[in-house]
Amino acid sequence: MVPYAPPESAAREKYRRKHPVAQFDIEILTALQAIVGESRVLTDAENLQHYGQDWTRFHQPSPAAALLPGSIEEVQAIVRIAAEHQLALVPSGGRTGLSAGSVAINGELVVALDRMNRIEGFNPIDRTVRCGPGVVTEQLQQFAEDRGLYYPVDFASSGSSQIGGNISTNAGGIKVIRHGMTRDWVAGLKLVTGTGELLDLNRGLIKNNAGYDLRHLVIGAEGTLGIVVEATMQLDRAPGDLAVMVLGVPDMRAVMHVLTAFQGEMQLSAFEFFSELALRKVVAHQDLQRPFATVTEYYALLEFEQGDERALEKAMALFEHCLEQGWVEDGTVSQSVAQAENLWRLREDISETITPWTPYKNDISTIISRVPDFLAEVEAVVNSKYPDFEIIWFGHIGDGNVHLNILKPEALGVDTFREQCGEVSKWVFEIVQRYGGSVSAEHGVGLLKKDYLQYSRSPLEIDIMKQIKLAFDPQGIMNPGKIFDL
Amino acid sequence: MVPYAPPESAAREKYRRKHPVAQFDIEILTALQAIVGESRVLTDAENLQHYGQDWTRFHQPSPAAALLPGSIEEVQAIVRIAAEHQLALVPSGGRTGLSAGSVAINGELVVALDRMNRIEGFNPIDRTVRCGPGVVTEQLQQFAEDRGLYYPVDFASSGSSQIGGNISTNAGGIKVIRHGMTRDWVAGLKLVTGTGELLDLNRGLIKNNAGYDLRHLVIGAEGTLGIVVEATMQLDRAPGDLAVMVLGVPDMRAVMHVLTAFQGEMQLSAFEFFSELALRKVVAHQDLQRPFATVTEYYALLEFEQGDERALEKAMALFEHCLEQGWVEDGTVSQSVAQAENLWRLREDISETITPWTPYKNDISTIISRVPDFLAEVEAVVNSKYPDFEIIWFGHIGDGNVHLNILKPEALGVDTFREQCGEVSKWVFEIVQRYGGSVSAEHGVGLLKKDYLQYSRSPLEIDIMKQIKLAFDPQGIMNPGKIFDL
Repeated sequence: MVPYAPPESAAREKYRRKHPVAQFDIEILTALQAIVGESRVLTDAENLQHYGQDWTRFHQPSPAAALLPGSIEEVQAIVRIAAEHQLALVPSGGRTGLSAGSVAINGELVVALDRMNRIEGFNPIDRTVRCGPGVVTEQLQQFAEDRGLYYPVDFASSGSSQIGGNISTNAGGIKVIRHGMTRDWVAGLKLVTGTGELLDLNRGLIKNNAGYDLRHLVIGAEGTLGIVVEATMQLDRAPGDLAVMVLGVPDMRAVMHVLTAFQGEMQLSAFEFFSELALRKVVAHQDLQRPFATVTEYYALLEFEQGDERALEKAMALFEHCLEQGWVEDGTVSQSVAQAENLWRLREDISETITPWTPYKNDISTIISRVPDFLAEVEAVVNSKYPDFEIIWFGHIGDGNVHLNILKPEALGVDTFREQCGEVSKWVFEIVQRYGGSVSAEHGVGLLKKDYLQYSRSPLEIDIMKQIKLAFDPQGIMNPGKIFDL
Repeated sequence: MVPYAPPESAAREKYRRKHPVAQFDIEILTALQAIVGESRVLTDAENLQHYGQDWTRFHQPSPAAALLPGSIEEVQAIVRIAAEHQLALVPSGGRTGLSAGSVAINGELVVALDRMNRIEGFNPIDRTVRCGPGVVTEQLQQFAEDRGLYYPVDFASSGSSQIGGNISTNAGGIKVIRHGMTRDWVAGLKLVTGTGELLDLNRGLIKNNAGYDLRHLVIGAEGTLGIVVEATMQLDRAPGDLAVMVLGVPDMRAVMHVLTAFQGEMQLSAFEFFSELALRKVVAHQDLQRPFATVTEYYALLEFEQGDERALEKAMALFEHCLEQGWVEDGTVSQSVAQAENLWRLREDISETITPWTPYKNDISTIISRVPDFLAEVEAVVNSKYPDFEIIWFGHIGDGNVHLNILKPEALGVDTFREQCGEVSKWVFEIVQRYGGSVSAEHGVGLLKKDYLQYSRSPLEIDIMKQIKLAFDPQGIMNPGKIFDL
């Protein structure tokens, strides 16, 4: 069969003729200052460094300027100037991304939404909150809690990530098996397109089957379709007390059995896993104890809403059943909020604990049932090629999302390690492709995984994405070079 | 401000030059017969009538032929022939649609997916089912139930609607406040595009942030982007026993208070409403009794998972609270499955009950909190212009989706009534627009609401949709004229 070759589109041809991006001159600077105010066009080295990078730290930031607009109208005015002069824009939220989706390395204008951080409205009947894009995740969580409600999307960077960025990356986290991704909580959003027009998508409606749902296209588009300038976020009923259970599990296949057994009987809000090696490191480096003396290859962490004693009774009965079946060798359950928090730390502190080993990290997924075989294949190839590499596994096994972490052996230089990890990436992504998995489960593509997109998406899909981008952004000025090159 | 005028795109110009659709000749007929078999190319009057229409019955069906492919490859081969000769295709499922999304009135080829009705695979760990597009909704529900699981999307036409059609219309129904729309249960889908290529979108992954989520674009696109030829549907844990409560509520504002009170404390699986007039008609024409003697302007129907007595106790306490506040004047709760079913019939039999009045129907939504004002405005305008029209309200108030039904006065001819209702539509949609609502909450746009799309979507949104369509279907052969004209 002849492989699919996308036809060259007129729009894309035109785009190529226009670039490279025009020079950033004093006239444009003055025009931008007139929009946002002189003090909000930042061009000093420190700010360019600050606003030009995210948490990846793999690229040397080099924006032309960072702009701090204070309103939707200011964002539109900036985009119109950029469109007129074909200047590339990089939308920027809390810059906590891990795929270099909001880095500026080519003289772009960074549009930082930090000042648009107000909660603009709350509707108690609809249980929706209208947010500026710069509202910090934790700020929204707290706002909900203060009103007896709940914003359930939660992850390590909640203290600094922003709603606009969460939407643009479809942020996931630790409650996905019960509450879904950011996608599931966006009731509406406003987007400034690449021509400076404003789209008001879905307007908070729960049911709206009037044409294509463009909102879902923008969610996870990493700023390549435009700048999210407002969002209406859905809140949920506050959950009751949460109980946490940690189980010692002999192998990955048993982890699957435990998941199926529990999910068949109860509503879990989290089902995480980590390996013995991960646990050993966490206990050694944090002020934490092992959950129990028994050593097993893997550990599962389950969370569920307690409500009354019945939930706990059911969980204990399921635990007994899993013990009898040999799927579990030991376990513990939290008796207090403090204990629950400590058990969570066994999982959540892993990332911080292994930082000194400058780990190679990869955020990948398959369907849940294929995770055991997938893990085994990845381990086999890494162990056979680099037997001195230590692999740390952890992640959100309940939704098929595992985080692969390879620690740098002490004797190995950082550059050599990175180079070898480049090879590992190729092997891993080839396995991902064979398993029909995703090269980016929750971190997005950005610059970091752009070259690997083809392992998860077909040439036709990528071509359609490019055409869609041009429908929103005909000049290709919105976060160019992220996800794909036009 | 100058209104937005979409630029003429080269692709669209090219599309216009090519049309009208080429004639359907004997050579093409032979080629199609070679693909699906002679007996599966239907051209007799009865079958053309059958396959050319859906439940709307507003248009005279006039397809050139109906084709019954049996595999993905056959669908691809059909599309390639259609693309070569610029023949329009109408994908067709159970044809239970209410917006004429799958009618064929212009000599199109109907591609009926009835034969592709096998459940191809079940994964108990992932809790997913791989379905042919022709799998009937009830078939999937039963398949899930037989395995102790649950497919929660449910609506009146579950006995004949098909999964491919549900996906293409993003079917909603009566459990949306807890379980969402069809959109929320599609873990993956395969689509044959307008060039006959096969897209395999999302492949069952729960977490997949590798580029734009094209799956969500296809869901609700009413077959205009291609033909859904397979779907991986997510199943849920089976719910416990469900209890149903019917409450007599004095006015719409009180309905909102009741909703907020209950949703703050418990997880509801349905929150429906209907008016006294609707109740009176249902009781008069079906074998049903009033839920209680008290007459109120509206009735709310709540459903929740019973689990144990605590849920019922909580519901009773909330009922008492609502009584004290004057939000509720009477109520009843089911004591058995049979009683729950009878209470549900008070709501579900309304549509059938009013059929003899050849009602004008409209399926619209706003955000929940604006429903009372919205209803009052619609009633005011209809009552002032046509005081002899009876309005029956019912619907899914918990998600802002109301069904407006106007009964034909006996003395009025059908044609005059329809003409007058055409005027009503304009008034209603102008109100919908002012309320930021949707002209189609759950039924889709099809042919029926195409002329009203602009009341819910901006010119720029509609232009972007057209460009997206051309990215999937460069010749515009996929269900042309539905949702919008290119």
